[in-house]
Amino acid sequence: MADYESVAKQFTDFYYQTFGQNRAGLAGLYRPDSLLTFETTQTPGGEAIIQKLVELPFQKMQHHVVTLNAQPSADGSIQVLVTGYIKLDEEPQPQTFAESFHLKPDGGSYYIAHDIFRLIFPP
Amino acid sequence: MADYESVAKQFTDFYYQTFGQNRAGLAGLYRPDSLLTFETTQTPGGEAIIQKLVELPFQKMQHHVVTLNAQPSADGSIQVLVTGYIKLDEEPQPQTFAESFHLKPDGGSYYIAHDIFRLIFPP
Repeated sequence: MADYESVAKQFTDFYYQTFGQNRAGLAGLYRPDSLLTFETTQTPGGEAIIQKLVELPFQKMQHHVVTLNAQPSADGSIQVLVTGYIKLDEEPQPQTFAESFHLKPDGGSYYIAHDIFRLIFPP
Repeated sequence: MADYESVAKQFTDFYYQTFGQNRAGLAGLYRPDSLLTFETTQTPGGEAIIQKLVELPFQKMQHHVVTLNAQPSADGSIQVLVTGYIKLDEEPQPQTFAESFHLKPDGGSYYIAHDIFRLIFPP
């Protein structure tokens, strides 16, 4: 079995770096049965998910991961919870976020079966 | 199929209310194959998880849910991401948190297969 913590770290490194540089490059990480929740909108299916991400109204969106936790499942999938902050375009104030992923094994690699992203505002 | 959004809402209402009143009362929600990550510590198995929760060094811990999102899985399980804030004992300042759950169906109900909890601090 792959070391799930290493997989989660490599996955998030790749995901957020690619997100910041070329969102369309994330296409290989989603499948037709993937689900994305971005804020309050749920988008099913890899093609629609990439379109949604590409069309987000930000040119520059840089994620900074502060916490990363992962758990293994008996079926080989991996649960991941990330918290951190993002910087949008030229806004000086970073915004806090939380994002959960459910990674499923597929042909020696993993894809994103579930992806839920929320911005977090202070109480 | 049960309405996964209603299940997620009922689950989190019960979970956080019980957490605030009687943490031992959460025992029925975990199973031997459950995993809890609380901050940086991973605890496997329902009995150990309840012991961990009961022994948290807070008498009063009240959760306030701000965002709640859920996604259905083909196998009947439900992915949940909660963000909000907690108030600890008599501390005046609430603390922001994110918590992800993976709920698995079991005999007409659901149990917590995966639970990851993190406090979030502003950047």
